Order: sequence, then C-alpha cells, then structure tokens
Amino acid sequence: MARRQDSTPGPRAAMIDGAISLMRERGVAATSFADVLARSGAPRGSIYHHFPGGKTQLVEEATVSASKWVGTGIERILDTSDTVGALRALVDIWRTGLEESRYEQGCPIAAAALGTERGARVIAGASFDSWCTLLTTKLTGEGVPDERAGSIATLIVSALEGALILAQAQESSAPLDAVVDELEVLCRSAVSSVR
Amino acid sequence: MARRQDSTPGPRAAMIDGAISLMRERGVAATSFADVLARSGAPRGSIYHHFPGGKTQLVEEATVSASKWVGTGIERILDTSDTVGALRALVDIWRTGLEESRYEQGCPIAAAALGTERGARVIAGASFDSWCTLLTTKLTGEGVPDERAGSIATLIVSALEGALILAQAQESSAPLDAVVDELEVLCRSAVSSVR
Repeated sequence: MARRQDSTPGPRAAMIDGAISLMRERGVAATSFADVLARSGAPRGSIYHHFPGGKTQLVEEATVSASKWVGTGIERILDTSDTVGALRALVDIWRTGLEESRYEQGCPIAAAALGTERGARVIAGASFDSWCTLLTTKLTGEGVPDERAGSIATLIVSALEGALILAQAQESSAPLDAVVDELEVLCRSAVSSVR
Repeated sequence: MARRQDSTPGPRAAMIDGAISLMRERGVAATSFADVLARSGAPRGSIYHHFPGGKTQLVEEATVSASKWVGTGIERILDTSDTVGALRALVDIWRTGLEESRYEQGCPIAAAALGTERGARVIAGASFDSWCTLLTTKLTGEGVPDERAGSIATLIVSALEGALILAQAQESSAPLDAVVDELEVLCRSAVSSVR
C-alpha cells in the first residue's frame, strides 16, 4: 500500500501542498477536502486512495511536511550565519511571503497548533520543540550557557510566531521588524556577556 | 433597536461569551451558531434578533468584547506594578487559564487574527496595537526612550501570544515561563541603561 502511494507522488504531494496553503490562509477547520481538491487539481476519487484516514490524516501529513520544510530552511540558514544574521534572513523570507500573499498566508504550524485536529496539534508542538533545539544548539555554539540558550530559543520561536500573527492582523510587516530588532539586542548581549 | 437589545442583555451577553469561549478552543471557522446556542443556553430564535448581521456580527462583537476584557486586565495590572511585575502577573493568570482548560482555551484575539472573518481580523489588529500602546506608555514612564519602548512593547505582545500557542501545542506552560524570564532580562536592561 505504501509502495503504491509512493509510485503516484504527483496528486498526493499536490494535495498536501494544497492543504498546507489552505491551513496557512484560513486554519485547519476551514480546510475542506473539496477546497484541497480544487486547489491541487487532484481528482476527487484520489482522496481516500491517498488518505484512507480522511481529513485527519491529510492535515497531520501536511503538518509534518510543513514542519520539515520550515525546519530544513532554519537549519540551512543557521549553517551559513550567526544567530542574529539567521533571524534577519528568516524575517526577510517571511516578510516577502506575507507581502506576496497580501498578509493571507501565515504559519502552517501555528494553524495546526490552534486547529481542530488533535494529532496535528501534537505534531505542531514537536515541531516548535525541534526549532527551539536548532536555535539552542546554535546559541550554545556561540558561547551562551545551556539553560539561557534554551530560554532565548523559546523566546525567539514564540516572538516570531506571535509577530507573524500581529503582522497578518495589521497587514504590516512592522511587528516582525520591531521583534527582530529586540531579539538582536538580547542575543548580542547574551553572547557578549560570556566573552 | 439598540435600546431593545440593551433591555435584554442576558441571552445576548451569554451568546457573546459563548462565542469567545468557542473561538478560544477551536478558532473562528469552527465556531457555529448552533454550538454558541448550545453553550450559552440562548433560545434559537434569538440569533437574528440580537445579531441581524449573522455570524460575522457575532464574531466581531465577541472580538471587541474579548479585546476590551484583556485590555482592561492589562491596564489594571500595569497600574499596580512595574512592567516586569505586570508580565509575571499576566503569565500567572494565563498559566492558570491554560491548566484549568487542559490547554484548550487560547487567546481569543489570536483566534480572530487567524480566523475566517475579515472584520474580526481588523479588530484583532487594532486590539494588539492598543495593548502595545499601554506597554509603550508604561515603559516610557520607566525611562525607556520612545522608539525603544515601542519595539519592546511589540516584542512583549508578540512573544506572549506566541508562547501561548507553543504552550497549547505542547500542553505545558514552560514556554510562557521561559519567555517571561527573557522579557524580564530585556526590560531590566532597557530600564537600567537609561538610569
């Protein structure tokens, strides 16, 4: 069964991408199979072939996929920059995404975390945790003590998630800019205090 | 018409409270009239009497009501404490709310900001802005320069909103505790640097 799914990645991947896109715009509850089909162009008959667990399975797989996509992006940026540079690069990417979508496309993991599918909520929690771990590792590598690095990492993830929500509601990227300015002050101070 | 509504505040207020509660648990899209009636105990016939604009009006009024309720709480706490003390008091209230609801009841304004009702999104944006203004005023009163106070206030609102989402997804108040620890470091440093 898994092999059969693997051999037809086209509509399956398109449905997952469609679900992610709709979750970002309107949340989990308002992401219907009909809308996912309309957006992805997948044939109606493919739903229960690819997702025998129904909407629950689709939303969970979309959350896993989005989590990996964001996590890989964070990892790549952290590999080529210090923490502060990485935060600025991330905010630049999100600012562009918000502006291009007229502030309609938010974070798919926040949507999963606040959504009506319990399994997806749990996946979102693990996703936030994995991003915090990436940032904690980076900060400790820059000399910040473990415990402090962990709480700064949690602040960074929380503040960026919250700033995305403010930015969407206010249709302005100003909250992201203000938040990254203050995170820079905090990160520089935490790194310099151990030097 | 307004007077008639004012003379029967019981079911109307109960429906607004029910809508706020459901928005906190499952978001705007999944907050149906039927569920609001079931939760509030209001009679079915009262919906279009009290909310001739339908669900859009109910969700908008619920967002306005929740915004005032949170804003008044923030104002009251800021009146009796410095910024850091106020943040700790707010986090204590939210921690209790999360634990008592088994992490089901999040922020109604975040729900409105990410929800499917455009008018409620705009109200949420103004609500975040008004909270930022309260915090900016407090911080400038503590000696932080205007521009810095504004960006710290935006960080505080963003970080607490984000931490609530992490806390719900992870069913733990640890993100709130980590965030308030770091916000305390930043606020103390901003205040002491101007003394």
